[in-house]
Amino acid sequence: MLGLMQQRPLLISSLLDYAERYHAGREIVSRSVEGPLHRSNWGTIARRAKQVANLLQRLDVARGERIATLAWNHNRHLEIYFGVTCSGAVLHTVNPRLFPEQVRFIIDDAESSYMFFDVTFAALVEQLAPRLPNVRGYVALCAREAMPSIDVPNLLCYEDLLAAETGDHAWPSFDEDLASALCYTSGTTGNPKGVLQSHRSAVLHSLALMSADTMAISARESLLLCAPLFHVNCWGIPFAAAGTGAKLVLPGMKLDGASLFELIRDEAVTFCGAVPTVWLNLFAWMEANLNTTDQRGLKLRRVLSGGTAVPRVVIEKAHNYFGATMLHAWGMTEMSPLGTCGSLLAQHVGMNLDERMPVHLKQGRTIYGAEVRIVDDDGHELPRDGRSVGEIQVRGPWVLSGYFKGAGGKVVDEDGWFRTGDVAHMDADGFITITDRAKDVIKSGGEWISSIELENLAVSHPAVLEAAVVATRHPRWQERPLLLVHRKQGAEVSKEELLAFLSDKIAKWWLPDDVVFVEELPHTATGKVLKTRLREEYGDWLERPAGTTSR
Amino acid sequence: MLGLMQQRPLLISSLLDYAERYHAGREIVSRSVEGPLHRSNWGTIARRAKQVANLLQRLDVARGERIATLAWNHNRHLEIYFGVTCSGAVLHTVNPRLFPEQVRFIIDDAESSYMFFDVTFAALVEQLAPRLPNVRGYVALCAREAMPSIDVPNLLCYEDLLAAETGDHAWPSFDEDLASALCYTSGTTGNPKGVLQSHRSAVLHSLALMSADTMAISARESLLLCAPLFHVNCWGIPFAAAGTGAKLVLPGMKLDGASLFELIRDEAVTFCGAVPTVWLNLFAWMEANLNTTDQRGLKLRRVLSGGTAVPRVVIEKAHNYFGATMLHAWGMTEMSPLGTCGSLLAQHVGMNLDERMPVHLKQGRTIYGAEVRIVDDDGHELPRDGRSVGEIQVRGPWVLSGYFKGAGGKVVDEDGWFRTGDVAHMDADGFITITDRAKDVIKSGGEWISSIELENLAVSHPAVLEAAVVATRHPRWQERPLLLVHRKQGAEVSKEELLAFLSDKIAKWWLPDDVVFVEELPHTATGKVLKTRLREEYGDWLERPAGTTSR
Repeated sequence: MLGLMQQRPLLISSLLDYAERYHAGREIVSRSVEGPLHRSNWGTIARRAKQVANLLQRLDVARGERIATLAWNHNRHLEIYFGVTCSGAVLHTVNPRLFPEQVRFIIDDAESSYMFFDVTFAALVEQLAPRLPNVRGYVALCAREAMPSIDVPNLLCYEDLLAAETGDHAWPSFDEDLASALCYTSGTTGNPKGVLQSHRSAVLHSLALMSADTMAISARESLLLCAPLFHVNCWGIPFAAAGTGAKLVLPGMKLDGASLFELIRDEAVTFCGAVPTVWLNLFAWMEANLNTTDQRGLKLRRVLSGGTAVPRVVIEKAHNYFGATMLHAWGMTEMSPLGTCGSLLAQHVGMNLDERMPVHLKQGRTIYGAEVRIVDDDGHELPRDGRSVGEIQVRGPWVLSGYFKGAGGKVVDEDGWFRTGDVAHMDADGFITITDRAKDVIKSGGEWISSIELENLAVSHPAVLEAAVVATRHPRWQERPLLLVHRKQGAEVSKEELLAFLSDKIAKWWLPDDVVFVEELPHTATGKVLKTRLREEYGDWLERPAGTTSR
Repeated sequence: MLGLMQQRPLLISSLLDYAERYHAGREIVSRSVEGPLHRSNWGTIARRAKQVANLLQRLDVARGERIATLAWNHNRHLEIYFGVTCSGAVLHTVNPRLFPEQVRFIIDDAESSYMFFDVTFAALVEQLAPRLPNVRGYVALCAREAMPSIDVPNLLCYEDLLAAETGDHAWPSFDEDLASALCYTSGTTGNPKGVLQSHRSAVLHSLALMSADTMAISARESLLLCAPLFHVNCWGIPFAAAGTGAKLVLPGMKLDGASLFELIRDEAVTFCGAVPTVWLNLFAWMEANLNTTDQRGLKLRRVLSGGTAVPRVVIEKAHNYFGATMLHAWGMTEMSPLGTCGSLLAQHVGMNLDERMPVHLKQGRTIYGAEVRIVDDDGHELPRDGRSVGEIQVRGPWVLSGYFKGAGGKVVDEDGWFRTGDVAHMDADGFITITDRAKDVIKSGGEWISSIELENLAVSHPAVLEAAVVATRHPRWQERPLLLVHRKQGAEVSKEELLAFLSDKIAKWWLPDDVVFVEELPHTATGKVLKTRLREEYGDWLERPAGTTSR
């Protein structure tokens, strides 16, 4: 017997319609690529999204066609987000920080038909265009006077195009399972693979982000979005923001401490999501440039971080500088990206920061909608005892069923479980602690050593800015940990001091066999330490003649 | 192009699985029908729900079959909620406060095959059983020693039946559009009509209840559920509670002030939903029995009310006695029931209670998922100006498409809009103010007078316990308002004093033509004043000889 409730499809356009109807005046503040702050609102975003939709019609863009963007976080990118998805085309956000060949591969693989790009990427676009046979036109996100002089086929001016379109457009209704957005994983091995979200998955994920146990996005929030719009749709936050009418603050390309602090203060930011590196930069700037009175009246109360383990110092400084509580989250492109979120449980309410710290240091807890389990090498679920380490598997309505064009083959099992490649343990409350990426695991004499735990300890030393621990080959133990350290500017610390600092915090056999001081660590486009490169470079470290610092 | 995300159906079993897996120890506290408090938890509820499912299999209950309950708010009712719906049968909660003939009609119309009943309703069950040909068995919700001696076919003992079943049951997967629950509207005219929820609508509605802009149900809450489980599934809260692992406090049949206060204090209740009458009773008890120190340490911070307009005094006392903020909500059985919810906007944050009061007095604002509009008599949408009065229409994935068995014919138009029969205006932020039920509207000389606004003003007089305003026929103005007043015990107030009290708060032509003092007002099963009966009784009031008080 079927229920007798309305069969209304879950479409992204319903989120935007909500914002337009009830929160039209709620601000969207952007740091423009041109420099100055740009003030818009949901009403204008919705109108211009409809102009984008009319433009796509004029450009003969069919339903399901991919539209690529190479752009920072700002209002134009946001209106393209909605204009493309709500009209039934597929938003294909491309990460401009990847190597040019990866960018080319991704746009070519997606067969995107148009590319909307910030003028800061004009040179890249010009370089790639000759090898992008499917792209029918390149739309520069600027007004006529800012158009770049580059030689690409069918170069178009966004503001001119929009000016020619009306803001009247009735969003079409269609199957909620139709594709809405395509994001490629910034894999460190092999070619990037595409994850194709649907309207259904995007709306359900948005509802999850609104829920009090995750990000609790509401109409009352002023959300500063430091995660790029090209990184899993900025964690899906723009869609949830529309469904609540939250204020958005988009920092453009400027993620430095001064720029972010100005936005947090002037735009009454209440919530900000950013990877740990961004937080560390902000705190360092505040320490160097502010006195305590400058922090009065700030509204930032909740901060979200993830992408990599959040160091204790970030949690402490968020508390001390803003009075903000850390939501430590975990996810990946393959899960839209929300997997776990570190919202507190009843027993944590009323604890002080020190008491809560063990909770904040975990990578969040399982929330409704994203099923998470940890399995051993044979695929059997491990006990949720906070000790048993294995690979994380996830399933749920916003988890992929397969990559775009079948890349990578079958990636979920018959029961829908996707192997994440992250290694962790889980406690009885569902909090996970990531101990490694499966491929970063250090196996010493058959036992696992957590590179992440060692890194977290190392960065808690006051002289350490950033640290990475990688496996190096060892004749007896197969692998041993090597600690790579980027010291803070002007700070002094020796190998012996660091090892002594670690030695009373870990089992003796976890102690790194050596410490290498580096000028900087390589990072992926999303800010993670690029361990593949470090392993290539240092995998033979212990086999080299003593005193050799590079090959 | 279809997205490549997992096709996992939205099923109520996924909510329960979540609670069982991560919040098994989180308490479910019930005031049992037997009297004492009963302490359970989500783990036990889930296990016993599986025993219920196994029992249904043993009883040959097919998928889609309706299972009726006549029961108060307690753990057994809750485990039946999940056991029935998760196994694919349809939960049919029946309101025992209706007239026996209505109860019989509802169970017969639903063709429910089994009835689970509290022993307090044994006499009612015995009275109805001979005229319920479809019911194959009657399960008394008690242990063997408490079994009632009644003469009904196939009388069964719930605890005996459950004891014979294991707690092993793999919840089946099925189409999310299958029916999950059947609730009848307690209409004041005609036969009650059934609203048949689906798993999809129940899960989406649950996600909506978790969202920060509505009830913000989270794992941190201790939820006292005063709305009956037989009233639109207690506003859907039990399902959302499972999806977060919130603590539930179920007050059984005792909604008196002393009993509720004890639960609020001892179970660290953080959130409580109840109709205004329940709040007024609780506050009256607190005023008579407590001194201020008794209120220290209470955790109640958010209260929800609806079903009828919430008087200002309830909002003030919730604030003064608990430090709790009122969420004024509006909905109906036909919308599962969430329509609007009075969560604050950014501009209200930081206001004191007086400044916020105009917001709290409205019946909430439109939230994502339940589309709300106000139309004139020709079906054209009215401006959202906070003045233009018309009928509310709603649509969305948790709004009905039609009543059970087609009762009432076609009730939504081609665009999915359902006519609610509530009359209101809406402001630009989406806040609605209900001015009347369509059928309670008073049309005086072609102009509308809001009976609800007059009632709210009348109850703000310190001597008035409850008030109702109904239309009476008038030779010149067609209709004029009549004020019916139930005075507080021992309080004195005259007709002249009341009219003087009102006269400077309203337009002159709104002033009621007369005031009648009554011993009590008639109520529907859900606590609303039964205006149909008042209109029948007083519709000719102004035509009667002066001094006549009853016919």
